[in-house]
Amino acid sequence: MKIARFDYQDQLAYGILDEEKNELIRLVGDPLYAGFETLDERIKLEDARLLAPVIPRSKVVAFGRNYLEHAREMGNEVPEEPMMFLKPNTSIVGPGHPIRLPKQSSHVEHEVELAVVIGSVARNVPAKDADQVIFGYTVANDVSARDLQKKDGQWGRAKGFDSFCPLGPYIETEFDPSSGGIGAKVNGEVRQVGDLNQLERTVEQLVEFASSVFTLLPGDVLLTGTPAGVGPIVDGDEVTCAIEGIGNLTNPVIAE
Amino acid sequence: MKIARFDYQDQLAYGILDEEKNELIRLVGDPLYAGFETLDERIKLEDARLLAPVIPRSKVVAFGRNYLEHAREMGNEVPEEPMMFLKPNTSIVGPGHPIRLPKQSSHVEHEVELAVVIGSVARNVPAKDADQVIFGYTVANDVSARDLQKKDGQWGRAKGFDSFCPLGPYIETEFDPSSGGIGAKVNGEVRQVGDLNQLERTVEQLVEFASSVFTLLPGDVLLTGTPAGVGPIVDGDEVTCAIEGIGNLTNPVIAE
Repeated sequence: MKIARFDYQDQLAYGILDEEKNELIRLVGDPLYAGFETLDERIKLEDARLLAPVIPRSKVVAFGRNYLEHAREMGNEVPEEPMMFLKPNTSIVGPGHPIRLPKQSSHVEHEVELAVVIGSVARNVPAKDADQVIFGYTVANDVSARDLQKKDGQWGRAKGFDSFCPLGPYIETEFDPSSGGIGAKVNGEVRQVGDLNQLERTVEQLVEFASSVFTLLPGDVLLTGTPAGVGPIVDGDEVTCAIEGIGNLTNPVIAE
Repeated sequence: MKIARFDYQDQLAYGILDEEKNELIRLVGDPLYAGFETLDERIKLEDARLLAPVIPRSKVVAFGRNYLEHAREMGNEVPEEPMMFLKPNTSIVGPGHPIRLPKQSSHVEHEVELAVVIGSVARNVPAKDADQVIFGYTVANDVSARDLQKKDGQWGRAKGFDSFCPLGPYIETEFDPSSGGIGAKVNGEVRQVGDLNQLERTVEQLVEFASSVFTLLPGDVLLTGTPAGVGPIVDGDEVTCAIEGIGNLTNPVIAE
């Protein structure tokens, strides 16, 4: 089931995608809290402005170096234990929303990632039970200012700018994250190509690891790392991050 | 004016401290959103259980290496530009709440810091206007697992554990952050001693810097760095972080 969060006639709404009819079946409320009860209302997809499908009230937890080939293209190895950093919820934008290149950087790159949306309060969850606390999956672009990442050492700035975390278009609640194509295109040209079966730590292992450190709250998002092929984006580009079975997340890029 | 957030008869409440009478004058609601209108109700301080005075809905932005002597005691220099990292809101606890030492670390340290509480939506705020977006100030303990900090490189785990960000006891809305004593004691023994006039970047400069990267939201918290003297805390310790004019933030330390 694909869940959308959207703006319809200037109201925030949630809906289930009917892929055959290209319509959204409106939900009573935020399905994270209100479940999947629907209203007797259908909205044409073209009349809805899709928003990021979730805005965490607590954390976007991102994992670095979780695909071997990407770790190596950056001159690193896969770390002995998962490497975590945080992105602020103010960095999140939805499909179609511009990625704004900040004046402080002259080298910004795309990073397509599978995003895990947490569905319930989770603390010390063993990998085997991870599926019980996962609400669904969406596509993320972990936009990164490479020059500042290197300069600062800590990545709070380089990965935290407003608009540096596009999410969407939908949350797929019945997704199998163990394999499937993941990739990114810039202006239609293929840049990143990978498969979710290349994750060094599986989604379930990452949930176990993160929940051994933080209490995860409903709506928290885990970004599971990016495959090889990252590269620069510049003013005027259009970047599309895609995961087979979830959808395409396309954002224009503009200089601030 | 000192603002408390507290638990009173199992209800969440806000109040203004009457320091002469040791009473809390109850506020209508969260003063960040509802202002300073009071109810005709006074609560004895001893009957209230103080909580962290704010839980950000977005960010705790922390600055590293902002006191020269602390940077040097860790073998570093003050960076050319401020170094930012994020702590999750799930790491925040209030006065008296235990700091839990996680099994994953064998070396956890205290770091007293001046915390700035943001009062309004802030983006690209010049230093000279910073006071207009600051709601007030409180005391923070940026608890840090040193071994994991070194091992991981990124500090998302080492500084992000549940209970690793005690805040309190009050938000002082009329505080002058340009000077004043700041320090930490463990079991009554002085560990950290400094003065806010040693901040390499002032509060106003940090607000300018952070707001040039992120949109700051009401309730966001900036941690302004720690003075020299950081050291380990172990099971059974009691750590007190203090800033002259704001108050003492005391937390017991227990092994998980």
